This record gives sequence, C-alpha cells and structure tokens, in this order.
Amino acid sequence: MAEQPEDITLVKGHSFTDHPLQPYSENNLDRIYMDYNATTPLEPEVIQAITEALQDAWGNPSSNYIAGTKAKAIINQSRENVARMVGGKAQDVIFTSGGTEANNLVLHTAVEHFRRNCRAAEQGEGRQNGCTGLPHIITCNVEHDSVKLVAEHLQKEGKADVTFVPVSKVTARVEVEDIIAVVRPNTCLISIMLANNETGVIMPVKEICQRIKSLNTQDERLRILLHTDAAQALGKIQVDACELGVDFLTIVGHKFYGPRIGALYVNGPGTRTPLYPMLFGGGQEKNFRPGTENTPMIAGLGKAAELVTANLSEYESHMRSIKLYLEERLQATFKDKIRFNSHYPGSGILPNTCNVSILGPTLQGWRVLSKCRRLLASVGAACHSDCGNRPSHILLNCGVPTEVAANALRLSVGRRTTQEDVDAIVEDLRESVQLLKERN
Amino acid sequence: MAEQPEDITLVKGHSFTDHPLQPYSENNLDRIYMDYNATTPLEPEVIQAITEALQDAWGNPSSNYIAGTKAKAIINQSRENVARMVGGKAQDVIFTSGGTEANNLVLHTAVEHFRRNCRAAEQGEGRQNGCTGLPHIITCNVEHDSVKLVAEHLQKEGKADVTFVPVSKVTARVEVEDIIAVVRPNTCLISIMLANNETGVIMPVKEICQRIKSLNTQDERLRILLHTDAAQALGKIQVDACELGVDFLTIVGHKFYGPRIGALYVNGPGTRTPLYPMLFGGGQEKNFRPGTENTPMIAGLGKAAELVTANLSEYESHMRSIKLYLEERLQATFKDKIRFNSHYPGSGILPNTCNVSILGPTLQGWRVLSKCRRLLASVGAACHSDCGNRPSHILLNCGVPTEVAANALRLSVGRRTTQEDVDAIVEDLRESVQLLKERN
Repeated sequence: MAEQPEDITLVKGHSFTDHPLQPYSENNLDRIYMDYNATTPLEPEVIQAITEALQDAWGNPSSNYIAGTKAKAIINQSRENVARMVGGKAQDVIFTSGGTEANNLVLHTAVEHFRRNCRAAEQGEGRQNGCTGLPHIITCNVEHDSVKLVAEHLQKEGKADVTFVPVSKVTARVEVEDIIAVVRPNTCLISIMLANNETGVIMPVKEICQRIKSLNTQDERLRILLHTDAAQALGKIQVDACELGVDFLTIVGHKFYGPRIGALYVNGPGTRTPLYPMLFGGGQEKNFRPGTENTPMIAGLGKAAELVTANLSEYESHMRSIKLYLEERLQATFKDKIRFNSHYPGSGILPNTCNVSILGPTLQGWRVLSKCRRLLASVGAACHSDCGNRPSHILLNCGVPTEVAANALRLSVGRRTTQEDVDAIVEDLRESVQLLKERN
Repeated sequence: MAEQPEDITLVKGHSFTDHPLQPYSENNLDRIYMDYNATTPLEPEVIQAITEALQDAWGNPSSNYIAGTKAKAIINQSRENVARMVGGKAQDVIFTSGGTEANNLVLHTAVEHFRRNCRAAEQGEGRQNGCTGLPHIITCNVEHDSVKLVAEHLQKEGKADVTFVPVSKVTARVEVEDIIAVVRPNTCLISIMLANNETGVIMPVKEICQRIKSLNTQDERLRILLHTDAAQALGKIQVDACELGVDFLTIVGHKFYGPRIGALYVNGPGTRTPLYPMLFGGGQEKNFRPGTENTPMIAGLGKAAELVTANLSEYESHMRSIKLYLEERLQATFKDKIRFNSHYPGSGILPNTCNVSILGPTLQGWRVLSKCRRLLASVGAACHSDCGNRPSHILLNCGVPTEVAANALRLSVGRRTTQEDVDAIVEDLRESVQLLKERN
C-alpha cells in the first residue's frame, strides 16, 4: 500500500450504510455506488435463500438422512438454475469457490490433458500429432489476473508456452485473425474473456470458437479447448455457452448480485470435455472439485442465476439507458475535456460500463475520486487498487494514451442506479474537478 | 449410489425442520441429530454475523473506498479471532474455501518447496543434503481423504514418495516411534490429523513434532515440515498450534458451528514456513490464496472461532458428560452385545465421539440406522456415505474386526445434546435392533 494516494483517506471517514437496494436519501453524505463491475450487492431474494439454507439446510449434503438430502436437493436445484442461465445442462456445472479457482482449473486441465495425451502417444495409444514440446496456450493481453498470472506461472515453470495476443488498439477487441495466426500444432487451449472488466468491450468469442472448430478436425481428444471467462458478462448480456461454442465458461456470483462463490460450466465434464481436478478429497462434485459443499452460498448462487434468467432483458435495458444518460450528462458537463475509454468503433460494450477520462494535467483518476463526496467508483480492477496512481495496463493495451489512461474512471452502473444518482455524481465530479483545477 | 441400502429411503420422507438449536418437541417424528462430526449447525451468532455481512459488507475488500474498507475490517477482525482460537498470530491465518483446500495446499507446498530446494542445490546455492530423489511424505492410514487422496495422487504421478504409517491396532493412534522409524533424508512433510473423525482418537502430534524437531538440525530451509489437520479437534479440545509445534494446521468452520469455509494456520507464511499458492489471481491473502474474499463466510468463521475461544471448556465438559451418559445408557441397554470402537487403552478420545457396534449378524450399521425413527447418525465419514454397507477402512485399520466394523455406528454429540435426546435415541436403537432381530 506504499503507493496509496494520501487523499484516499478522505473517503474512508463515513459509515457505509446506504445499501444500493434501498432508496437513497437526500442526505449529501450518502454515497452513490457506481462500481458494479468490482462487485455487486446481493439481491434480497439471494440473501433470503442464503439465510434459509444457513438455518435449515446445514446438514452435510453427503449424509444419507434427511438433513443431508435436503441440502443435496438445494444444491441440485441451484445447479439447474446456474445451468439454465448459461444455456447448459445441470451436469455441466461444477461449483467452485469463485472465478479465480474456475479459471485456474481450466488452465490446469488443458496442460494436464496435453500431458496425458503425450504420455498415451508415447505408449502408442494415441497419435503423435500435436504431442511434441510444451502445451501451448493462447490468451489475450487484457485478461483478468486469474487467467493472466496462471498463464505466466505455467510459462515461468516451463510447463506451457503462452501467447498473449494483443487486442487491437482500434477496437480494443482481440481479433479473430490474430488468434488464428498464432495457433500451433500443440495449442491446447484458447482462453478469451467474454467482456473486459475495465472497458466493457465484448470479445468475439463465438467467432473464435467457430474458426477454431473448423481447425479442430483432428483427433477429438487433441482438439483445442475453448474457454471464456464470463465473469463480467453474466447478468449484463445474454450468455449461452452452446451458442458461443465454448468448452468451459467461468461463472462468478458476486458480479451478478449473487454470493462470493462461482462455478465452471464444462461441456460434458470428463466425457465430452476433459476436466482434471486440482484438489483431492471427499468426492464431492463428482471428484472434480471435492470439499463439503458450501450449501448456503450455492443456494444463493442458484437464486441469483434464476433472477438473471428471468429478468435479464429488463436489467440490460435499464443499465443501458442509465449508462447512456450518464454519458450524455458527462459530455454535456465536461464538453471536449472528456474522453470515453469504452467507445471503440465496431465493438460491442457491456450495457453498464462507462470508462471515462476527464482531461487535464492534475485530473488523475484517483485524485478526482478522492475529492468526490458521494461517488464510489474505481480507476480499474479492484484487485489492482494498490497501484491506484499508475495508469491501467488494460487501457494502455487498448491504445489509450498514457496521460488519458492515468485520468481514467471506471463508472459501472447497476440494476437500480437512477437518473438522480447520475445527476448527483456528475455534479460531484464537476465539483471535484473544479477543486483540483483551482488548487493547482 | 448403486450400493445404497434400499431401506435408507425410509428416513428420507420427513421434513427436516427441527433445528438442534431449538428445543426438541415431544413429537415422535422429530429427529435427533447425533452426527456432529459430519457437520454442525451454525450458532445463531454466526448466522447473524454472516447475514449482517451479506447486507452491509458486500463491497469488494480490495476497493479503497468505504464499502471496501468496511469489508476489509471485518476480514481482519475474523483473522484475529481465528488466529486466537489456535494460538497463532493474525498474519499466520490464510482463509481457504475449506479444509480440503487447506490440506491440499500443505501437500502441494511441501513438494514444491522440496523441488525448489533441489533446484537451488543444483545451482550451487544450497546444500545437496536431502535433495536427491523424490520428496517423501509421511502420513498415517486413518487420515481424511483430503490428505490421503492427495498423497496417493502425488505418488501415482511420480511427484512424491509417501509412507502411510499404520496406526497401532491396540491404541488406534499413530505411534511416535513408528513415524521416526520411517523418516528419510528426503522426508519433506509429516501430516498427521489431530483427532480421527470416526474413532475420535487423539494423535500424539505434539510428541511427533518434538521428536522431529530434534532431527531438524540441518539447514532450516530443508527441515521436515509438520502439519496437522485439526478439523475434528477444534471446538472440542484445546488446540494451540505453537504448543503442538506444527508449521501448518487445518481449520474447518463447519465442524465447530461455523460456515463452510476454512483456513490454514501457517507459522509465518512465506517467511518462517514456506507456502506456495495453488491458485493465481488478484493478489488476495497476500497472493497465497487469491480470489475476491468471501466476506460473509469469513465473518461467520471469525464469530465461530470467537465462540470457541470464549466457551471451549464449557462445550467440552458438556459434550464429555453427555457422551459418558450415552455410553452408560448403551451399555445398560445392550449389555455384552455391544462394543465401543472408540475405546483404546491409553488413547485420548474427543469428548463428543462414540463409535459403537451393536453385535449380531443382521445388525449392520446402515440397517440399524435405517430402522431408527428419530436418530440421525452415520456409519462413518459422510464423504463415504455411498459405501454405507462396507465396513469402514478406518475402523479396520484400527484393529476392529470386520464383523464388528460392519455394525459400527458413529454417534457424535453436540453442544446442546441433552440426556433426553440420549434416552430417546437409545430407545430408538433398542427398537430398531429388536425389529431387525425379529425379522431374521
């Protein structure tokens, strides 16, 4: 925390009592949360599902008696609901402790699968094709750390070769042709996020899968596995794993008003698609992810998924219209002294994400936020909050100039963000910017 | 589930509504839970801590503003509470998704540490001593699957040699001399559970640590690491990691009336004791265990730990006296037709665990339980509930004869089990046994 901006303490002094699900009071001290890409509050129905399970379904789901079977039934229902949200079958859903574990599990599986195929080939059981050298992973240069750092670790340990395909500095998307161009005979996995957490840019995952499938004509066992981290997309845009054509899809509860666990969609785990556990233990989740199930959190995840399935179009259109209003208000207030880092020609953007820089030499994102009285937002991924005064490498990789990236604010709206909230935070930003300009 | 006893469905028909924390009604259909070693209900204070955090501390703990810092403060407080429960410092506690992950992390670390030392030795940076061949792990033959299966996996993959030291068939404990006898120059880890989940037998972990430390006179970096899985001991007996002398200690919330997450105590993680992450991501838990923190569950774990610290002697003496009453009543009812599989000369036993076989050719544990109207208990570890009609390998390893082991019932009492509960389930067992005897 050595590089923590000093001013940040200014926003820490007040009690965080205004739950976004409750109407905001007119009190100026009330905060307005616009960091829904960092995390979301839990829907009341989700809290209720969790609380009920804490009370009534505490039995061990592996126990054969009623306390266990009740918990098991809740878990099965949640599995159905999570599967439905992503267009999969219940048996395709493996519950994990979160998105980080799900992403790690995919990269681990790809390397392990390659290694086993090689061993089988050496023993004359399989074809040699593609089984020489290290497994090769393709990803892009704007992925979340739970993909990026795993890939770097595998590379450093000599367990895999990794190609980090740069996203286009025009579209901020990874381009299909750029992926195809780096495919090698030993490519075992392509992992591309469905939507970026900072820019909101939606990646052409479906197109990548289609193109790769036309290459995947060799032995089915040796096909290139396809993964998308859908953490930021779920609950914001329609996500269908089958339509996308992925083998793996990462699900993160706390990004769609659910709890702090996750799941991995796998298209036929252990049958159609390989899956190798990282943990060993009591056999839960068909041995793919053992450990006594976190029933209450799983109950909450299922409820959150159910709400997404039922209400997605409503959530999406509300967030989209509020974000448009936000962008209009920002534009009207700051005129030509503003740049949107989430506008790219031809690229689809999440309906809730507005990444914006207010231009000026003293208007670094962390400085602007530290002077805001009501706005709670961030300058980038929450995990990188320790380096708040360095420009985001994600934005730099998307072609945003350094001095613009340094001023970036990530404003992400939620299901209940109102026009009044937008008015208030734009005024807040205006005052903050004025203060900072006067000071210098 | 192919081998599931058919009769088991008989106990599934009723609603499991009697929360053990509420007084039992006199209704005969009410179930009496005596499987507290499988899992425990959550204390009301724990549920409250979780619920409050779900409502008020949903912010991302990595966020710099108040929503984040509030969550971070809760996590820090829980870390203090968990540390205090095991006699450690806050910085020694790494939160994990559960005991399975914690145990896996320890074995992973030991192997990784050995590998890195070897590499350093090859590069002339360290001493060659102990760095030839595979790392060697010592454990015993009654460990939980989250140690046993990890060790077997490492062995099968050629990543480690493992010695499964048999427990004594007289004491059901792993004997210190038997551990010492199998230590090799390349032994990197000794992992022995603090108390067994089926027999309740307490292992001589402190004595093992003392003896090993006298052997650990070589390079500190190459010392034999010491781990105990304290899942079944915490909340039942006093546990102090420093007094035991372990480097690692596994903590599992749902065994002491807490939530379904866990923690790993590490004596100076990354400094005094090596710790190598299995997951890579956003930097949480000092990079030892990344992933957005499950704040509500961590809040609950902290509260459960606080309760243990405050009330352990009361919990312990209550459970001990109820268990003694249970054993007396069983003895009085079944006379010489009973054998306690949790009585071993000289061995300490958990205060809550009674493993008992009612002798007779048709009185297999699963049969007896399936005829009980009120008793909810198990025949062994919940994770093995699928093989309910095979005798427990744990009991067989402890020297219990096959026909006795096949009849075993694990009755584990809790903080609020009453003499009336005991009277009711002993009567339940008597009727069940009579029914089974008449039938045959």
